[in-house]
Amino acid sequence: MFLKNAWYVAAWDHEILADTLLARTLLGVPVLFYRKENGDVVAMDDKCCHRHAPLHLGRKQGDCVRCMYHGVTYGPDGRCVEVPGQAKLPAALKQRTYPVVQKKRWVWIWMGDAERADEAAIPDTFSLDHPEWRWLPNYLQYDCSHLLITDNLLDFSHLDYVHEKTFGGASSIAETQPLIEMLERGIRIRRPVRDTVPAPYHRKLGRFEGNVDRWFTYDFHAPGILLLDAGVKPTGTPDDDLSEALRFHSCQAITPENDRSTHYFFMSAHNFRRDDAVVTETIARSLNAAFAEDKLILEAQQKMIDSTAESPMVAIGADNALYRYRRLMAKLLAEDAGESSGAGAFPRAA
Amino acid sequence: MFLKNAWYVAAWDHEILADTLLARTLLGVPVLFYRKENGDVVAMDDKCCHRHAPLHLGRKQGDCVRCMYHGVTYGPDGRCVEVPGQAKLPAALKQRTYPVVQKKRWVWIWMGDAERADEAAIPDTFSLDHPEWRWLPNYLQYDCSHLLITDNLLDFSHLDYVHEKTFGGASSIAETQPLIEMLERGIRIRRPVRDTVPAPYHRKLGRFEGNVDRWFTYDFHAPGILLLDAGVKPTGTPDDDLSEALRFHSCQAITPENDRSTHYFFMSAHNFRRDDAVVTETIARSLNAAFAEDKLILEAQQKMIDSTAESPMVAIGADNALYRYRRLMAKLLAEDAGESSGAGAFPRAA
Amino acid sequence: MFLKNAWYVAAWDHEILADTLLARTLLGVPVLFYRKENGDVVAMDDKCCHRHAPLHLGRKQGDCVRCMYHGVTYGPDGRCVEVPGQAKLPAALKQRTYPVVQKKRWVWIWMGDAERADEAAIPDTFSLDHPEWRWLPNYLQYDCSHLLITDNLLDFSHLDYVHEKTFGGASSIAETQPLIEMLERGIRIRRPVRDTVPAPYHRKLGRFEGNVDRWFTYDFHAPGILLLDAGVKPTGTPDDDLSEALRFHSCQAITPENDRSTHYFFMSAHNFRRDDAVVTETIARSLNAAFAEDKLILEAQQKMIDSTAESPMVAIGADNALYRYRRLMAKLLAEDAGESSGAGAFPRAA
Repeated sequence: MFLKNAWYVAAWDHEILADTLLARTLLGVPVLFYRKENGDVVAMDDKCCHRHAPLHLGRKQGDCVRCMYHGVTYGPDGRCVEVPGQAKLPAALKQRTYPVVQKKRWVWIWMGDAERADEAAIPDTFSLDHPEWRWLPNYLQYDCSHLLITDNLLDFSHLDYVHEKTFGGASSIAETQPLIEMLERGIRIRRPVRDTVPAPYHRKLGRFEGNVDRWFTYDFHAPGILLLDAGVKPTGTPDDDLSEALRFHSCQAITPENDRSTHYFFMSAHNFRRDDAVVTETIARSLNAAFAEDKLILEAQQKMIDSTAESPMVAIGADNALYRYRRLMAKLLAEDAGESSGAGAFPRAA
Repeated sequence: MFLKNAWYVAAWDHEILADTLLARTLLGVPVLFYRKENGDVVAMDDKCCHRHAPLHLGRKQGDCVRCMYHGVTYGPDGRCVEVPGQAKLPAALKQRTYPVVQKKRWVWIWMGDAERADEAAIPDTFSLDHPEWRWLPNYLQYDCSHLLITDNLLDFSHLDYVHEKTFGGASSIAETQPLIEMLERGIRIRRPVRDTVPAPYHRKLGRFEGNVDRWFTYDFHAPGILLLDAGVKPTGTPDDDLSEALRFHSCQAITPENDRSTHYFFMSAHNFRRDDAVVTETIARSLNAAFAEDKLILEAQQKMIDSTAESPMVAIGADNALYRYRRLMAKLLAEDAGESSGAGAFPRAA
Repeated sequence: MFLKNAWYVAAWDHEILADTLLARTLLGVPVLFYRKENGDVVAMDDKCCHRHAPLHLGRKQGDCVRCMYHGVTYGPDGRCVEVPGQAKLPAALKQRTYPVVQKKRWVWIWMGDAERADEAAIPDTFSLDHPEWRWLPNYLQYDCSHLLITDNLLDFSHLDYVHEKTFGGASSIAETQPLIEMLERGIRIRRPVRDTVPAPYHRKLGRFEGNVDRWFTYDFHAPGILLLDAGVKPTGTPDDDLSEALRFHSCQAITPENDRSTHYFFMSAHNFRRDDAVVTETIARSLNAAFAEDKLILEAQQKMIDSTAESPMVAIGADNALYRYRRLMAKLLAEDAGESSGAGAFPRAA
């Protein structure tokens, strides 16, 4: 079950070029993306309503797309504009289209009630399009439920274990209690880690002689946008003095492909040494290496869950944000389905 | 659900040599084929009724086949003729066999009530064995239901789109209304296309200076035999003057392997320049290239149907033959199951 | 359905080295194996009860294992000994562990009621650790139910057919009636084969000028241990004179991975020419070649069973031991489930 009335990231803008017919399954629905002559992105069902052939094997013709099985052609609003050998166009010959917004390098889609699609609800991913920040785009597909990725992102204690050789290094992150605050449609987590060792990838980027302070502050917006302010500075320097700090801003988007596969769009930006391409590349590569570590453990976790008899998960303190977020999602899903309350849909922390 | 009381093509004759044990699943049933000493083909269940090992891993011994798990041996009528270490042969130890006819290079099988197997009901595939026609045999396996291939063959408007670079070329085929006539157990379709451009593969074979007339006349016999007379001649020449024409006769057989996989046996014969092996080879290769185009779109169509929520197909005029044929099939299937009428089993055209 | 209250072979001792975290699924349950500092083997559920990540991606730390997702650590009794960032350890955070016995090169596991695990019930696999016997260890995984392997081992008539080129050679084994005796939890089979030709692999090992006598005497202990005394000697020599004989002792263990996949641990020992490594290697290679023949036919049999409509197996005389053993298993399974009688759970021989 997916939250329908919400914005999801469907693609990086550069994945849909002028001549592209991009096929991507989102929330279990195969969707076709292409650009009109004016650059606007069109999203419509990939399944041709005539004989169910995929439109992405078709042909873009101006603002329209032709199914290359029998030649039926649709306009950007999904209406049929041509049936070869037939003058009258059946009204039922129509593809469902979806509201799409291209904003700061990401293409967003709304798969619920089109009337409720409000562009203002899209979170501010400012670093994706800001002169002071540098980054490289990335994408991974995970063979697991988006819920396992959400869990993963709501508890950074895993950095010490999953990312021991990249982002973590000591048990200090796990030992620091995060500050958790519920948002109307999300959750805010702050985890300041004092007087610890730099992470392996910090050493590649800076020169920290002694211990460091680290911080992780992020909002996770339902159903799958993470905006993270993170950094590292020498222990002992004042918190408002970032002159010796390395600071990062990361935008991450989780979009279900189906209930066992997830699209993951992400980047981590830096505002220091921003004309040094090696720094940008180093950060992107470190991020890739770390996300490959997540992918490994999450896919193994999914496989374990799917191949064994159902059994309860035993809660620990670090799961606090997970359980609070799942309760929020239960409420949002109930609202999405037009119900009044979603109590009880997700397990509570013990 | 497959029509049981019908002849299906099981193999090309050259697929069953003197020492062959051919395993082929037909209508969901694994069948073993082999030749007796006198050349007659035997078809029996591949699953040994003793311990369910496959007989095709066994050994042909004269007219018999021995299961190489425990040595149980069956004669060409399916009766057990030997159980190692045991004098008495249990009557229940018997393989089901199927009526088989080898006729004009194809091996036909009847998987329904053996009493009803009438050889006279096999369609006349004359060009498969005729001194004036030349061709090369071919076979493809499609990962889709035989129904999607049937649909494909009952509407040649797809030639302009799927086969744009091989058999089609203009939208003239799609724009010509076919003449449709119901047969007792099939459908006859005629589509004369006047004053159009030659197809790409015509150019490889002949030299047409200007526009051409094309014709496609075919009978589709339930449940899966297509016999096609097709050709091309310069526009303006009389219809009964084929001196400058290229004429083809194609025999095609669709046999379900199971409900998501289909055997496809086919060839296209020519009676012009019949001593030119390059012509024969060119036609066979063009046919292969075109059928690879069909395989691509049909398998994509099947995948789309299977991976999405069920939704109606919206009918257009070109679907006329499809819907009429499906109604015929519904009737035949109902008769096959011993019912009086099959009304309503298939959707009607809108 | 698996017999739970029974000893199964889980591994060769050399598969679990000092630093190994071995993941192996047994009876459908993913189990983690590792050694304590004192060499004892620990078996616990591989699924971490916190968030269901696999412990085999974790880290061995002394006698404990740490889950490398969030750092939760378990002792060899399955109890949690550490939760990062949390002083109080929830009692529910506990992995199930299983009784394990390492005995004569095999690691045995008991997956039923731990109270009932009696080491004395482990069959005597003496040749696995005996100064007069030489052998090499082997393992294969079969993509089929353990029941098909059991069937296979309870009727050696298949040696003449499946192993025609390795262990069999004539139809003499199939033609010799075995002597069958029920044990309390197993079955004893004796098959003396007189005056027959040597098997192909005998020729590699000895020099038999004429015909030979062969013997196969084995106990099959439920649910999956075969202990075989087999040999060959010149026809005409007295049965108690083994001076010219080749004698073998084989230990084989079948352990279900799940209902369609089985672990197979096996070896065949010799006590002649025991300082000749070539003999040991030749026997191991012959065994491997023969078991590859079994794997081929059994996996094909499983595939045939799974891909076709259910149909009865027709019994022959050679199936006698199979049906008697299945009745014993039905009784043991019923007892295992706490019932009084298992009559009727398995088909009877016709």
